[in-house]
Amino acid sequence: MADKIPVYEDIIKAHQIIRPYIHRTPVLSSTGINSMLGVDLYFKCENFQKVGAFKFRGATNAVRQLSSAEAKKGVATHSSGNHAAALSLAARQMNIPAYIVMPESAPAIKKKAVKGYGAEITFCESTLEAREKTLEEVQKKTGATFIHPYHNFNVICGQGTAAKELLEDYPDLDVVIAPVGGGGLMSGTSIAAKAIKKEPVVFGAEPLNADDACRSFNQGVLIPSVRPDTIADGLLTSLSSLTFQIIKENVDDIITVKEETIVAAMRMVWERMKIVIEPSSAVPLAAVIENKYKFDGKKVGIIISGGNADLDHLPF
Amino acid sequence: MADKIPVYEDIIKAHQIIRPYIHRTPVLSSTGINSMLGVDLYFKCENFQKVGAFKFRGATNAVRQLSSAEAKKGVATHSSGNHAAALSLAARQMNIPAYIVMPESAPAIKKKAVKGYGAEITFCESTLEAREKTLEEVQKKTGATFIHPYHNFNVICGQGTAAKELLEDYPDLDVVIAPVGGGGLMSGTSIAAKAIKKEPVVFGAEPLNADDACRSFNQGVLIPSVRPDTIADGLLTSLSSLTFQIIKENVDDIITVKEETIVAAMRMVWERMKIVIEPSSAVPLAAVIENKYKFDGKKVGIIISGGNADLDHLPF
Repeated sequence: MADKIPVYEDIIKAHQIIRPYIHRTPVLSSTGINSMLGVDLYFKCENFQKVGAFKFRGATNAVRQLSSAEAKKGVATHSSGNHAAALSLAARQMNIPAYIVMPESAPAIKKKAVKGYGAEITFCESTLEAREKTLEEVQKKTGATFIHPYHNFNVICGQGTAAKELLEDYPDLDVVIAPVGGGGLMSGTSIAAKAIKKEPVVFGAEPLNADDACRSFNQGVLIPSVRPDTIADGLLTSLSSLTFQIIKENVDDIITVKEETIVAAMRMVWERMKIVIEPSSAVPLAAVIENKYKFDGKKVGIIISGGNADLDHLPF
Repeated sequence: MADKIPVYEDIIKAHQIIRPYIHRTPVLSSTGINSMLGVDLYFKCENFQKVGAFKFRGATNAVRQLSSAEAKKGVATHSSGNHAAALSLAARQMNIPAYIVMPESAPAIKKKAVKGYGAEITFCESTLEAREKTLEEVQKKTGATFIHPYHNFNVICGQGTAAKELLEDYPDLDVVIAPVGGGGLMSGTSIAAKAIKKEPVVFGAEPLNADDACRSFNQGVLIPSVRPDTIADGLLTSLSSLTFQIIKENVDDIITVKEETIVAAMRMVWERMKIVIEPSSAVPLAAVIENKYKFDGKKVGIIISGGNADLDHLPF
C-alpha cells in the first residue's frame, strides 16, 4: 500500500496542534554575510527550537496525534541524534514513556540530552540492521508505537511548519533551501513552500559525501547512500520511499556541497551571526557559497536545522 | 579638573543620537539554564550588536558628537579588542579616518575585524606605556581625537543605552549584572539602572584574576590590577578615576569569579542557548552560578557584552 502523501492543509493542522508546545523561532539576517555573498539571506533559526532542532516539531505532532490507548504504551525510535531527543521531550511533555535505540557511537552531547529528557535508552551496534532488530525487540516488550524519524506522515507535517512560519514572516522569498538527510524536513518544507508561494524555487542541499538524494532525484529511482561519510552527521541517512516521492514532486533541484565548504559556512555563521549551529545546518549556506551566481541579488530563505554541535569536537 | 559625571538624561540623549546606527539587540532567556540555577535570567545580547559587542554603542556616540572640524581629522585609540573594531566602524560610517594602536599580541580575529572596517593600524608592544607613546605619535601626526575605551563621558553614555533597552523591555528586573573591565559598560549600566528603577540591585562581575574593581570598591581607593591573567580578555583593563567614581556611587557590589566558572558559564550559554559569546560575557553568569543563594527566584538581567570569541582558541 502506498504511503499517504501530506498536503499543505495537513501542515496547517499540524501547526495548530503543536503551536502551544514549540517555539516560534526567529528569522535572522547578517549584513556581513549578505554583502560578502551578494545575496539576501533569511535564516530560520531552528537551532533555537526546543531540544535545539526542528525535529521537535515533527516529534510533537506525531506524539500528539496518538490515540490515548497508543499514548499510554509510549513511543519508540532508533536515532543517534536530534530525533531521539525531540521524541523524548515530546513524550515527557505528555507524561508517556519514550524508548530510544541508539548506537554506542552517538555523540556524547546527544546521549546526555536524551537521558536528560527521561527516555529509556537501549544501546546497540551502529549498523541499520542492529538498530532495527533492537527496536523490534523493544517494541515487542513494551507495545510502544514506532515513530520513524522521517518516513512518517505526521513527522513530515510537523517539520513543514518551520517553512510555513518562515514564509509567513517573509512572504516574498525567491528561494527556500533546506538540508536533506532522510528528507523529512525537505519534504515538509517543499510542500509548504510550493503551497504558499506560486513560483518559489525550492532547493535541497546535501553533502557530496552523502549525496543519495541528489542521485535519486536525478535518476528518478531511490538510490540509498553506501557508507556516507560527512561532517554533517544529521545528514547521513538516506531518503525513504515516502520522502523521495514528495521531493521528486516538489523540489526544484538538489545541490551537493564539499566538506570544506560546509566547515567554512558553519564557521561563517558562528563568527558573523554569533549563533551556534551544527554542521548539517551549514549545508544550505554552503550551497549558496558554492553557487553564488545562482542566487545573485535574490531573497533566499534558509532553514537552520539545529544547534547541537559537539563542542568537544569542533571542525575548526 | 574633575571629569564630568554622566546622568541618566545624558544616556537618553546618547540613545537618541545612536539609535539609527545600532541594533536594538534581543533579550533572550533559557528555560534550561533557569531551571538548573533556580533563577529567572534575562540576557541582553550585545553579542548581536554591530561589530559583535556593546562597544559600538559608546564609540558611535563619541564619534557622532565630534565637531565637524574634529571629525575631519578622524579618531584614534589604543585597544586590543572590541573598542578598536567599534571605533573603526563608527568612523567609517561617518566617512572619517580611524587610527588604531594595537599590540602585536592581539587575537587574530580582532586584528582582522579592525582591518576589515578600513582603519589604519599601528602595531606596538603590549605594555600600556608602549601603547600610550605610540598613540601620542599617531595623534601628533594626524590631529585625530583620542577616544578612550572607557575614560570618556560620551563612551560611557553610549554603553548605558544597553541597560536602558533591557529595562525598557523588562522593567521588573530585581537585579542587573554587567561585567567589569575598564568600567565603561558598568558605569553606564549602573547610571541607567539606578535612574530607571527605584531599588534595583546593580552588581558588577569580575574575574578573580583581574579583580581591581572589587579591591578598589572595597577599599575606597583606585587600585589598578598588576599583571591580570584571565581568559576574559575583555576584562584585563583596570578602572579609571572616572569609572571608579561612578561605580563607587552606583554599584551595590562587585562579585569576583573563578576562571573555571567563567569557562563553565561560557559553555553553558553556547550549549543551552546556542549563541556564541566571548569569555568576558560569561562572567556575570559565572557570578550567578557561584552565588546561587543570592539570586534564588529573582529576575536577573545580564548584559552579554560581546560575541567575538576566537574560534581557533576555545577553552573547551
